Amino acid sequence: MPDSTDESQIRVLVDQWAESVRAQDMDGALANHTDDVVMFDVPMPLLSEGIEEYRRTWELFFANSSGGPGSFDVTQLRVVASETVAYCHAILGIADSKGRLTMGLQKVDQQWLIAHEHHSYPLPLDSGE
Amino acid sequence: MPDSTDESQIRVLVDQWAESVRAQDMDGALANHTDDVVMFDVPMPLLSEGIEEYRRTWELFFANSSGGPGSFDVTQLRVVASETVAYCHAILGIADSKGRLTMGLQKVDQQWLIAHEHHSYPLPLDSGE
Repeated sequence: MPDSTDESQIRVLVDQWAESVRAQDMDGALANHTDDVVMFDVPMPLLSEGIEEYRRTWELFFANSSGGPGSFDVTQLRVVASETVAYCHAILGIADSKGRLTMGLQKVDQQWLIAHEHHSYPLPLDSGE
Repeated sequence: MPDSTDESQIRVLVDQWAESVRAQDMDGALANHTDDVVMFDVPMPLLSEGIEEYRRTWELFFANSSGGPGSFDVTQLRVVASETVAYCHAILGIADSKGRLTMGLQKVDQQWLIAHEHHSYPLPLDSGE
């Protein structure tokens, strides 16, 4: 059976990550990711693979954000965890906009790590899919 | 330890789902989802919750697609599964466009079900996040 602390550990990890983003603390933002993390970010490219490409997505974001309170708020976080694999999703408040966040996580050496992220904004309805 | 067939089962499920979407077969597209599925779709709204709202996202898509080969192709699928919780991500080929797909899955009564989906297109770089 999954340990109930798995969900708690992941909630703490996501909170710390968002706090690092608000503080524009790159080391903190990258602290709990796998080396082969796959990122689907809001802007192009289609995907970023590996921790160095992941870092570049934050360089871009930090260059376009002033950080601080309200600059990157995680709300409505829901975590679904087994003992070794988990995912979570949430709403992202970025300034006056609302986006969506999904993460995939894996436990490696007793430590949860983020192996996948998907960030997006919904398009206006007339864009269709 | 995770059963290696969990990944295989999920790959089959995702393939069947995409095939149903291409065939505009609503029952097939909804066949393996939880009642409380949370969908982050390409167009608004921000999120759709529950199988009835999920159904509506496909009514919209089917109304704007002619279906058939190439209308909804899942490529680069990667699945990470434990015995009870899994996630997967892939690139979606929709006509001439490329989007991104992430799913969260849970095993219920020995059957994998999709409990979360996130679909998006990357924005042009000058849109920022």
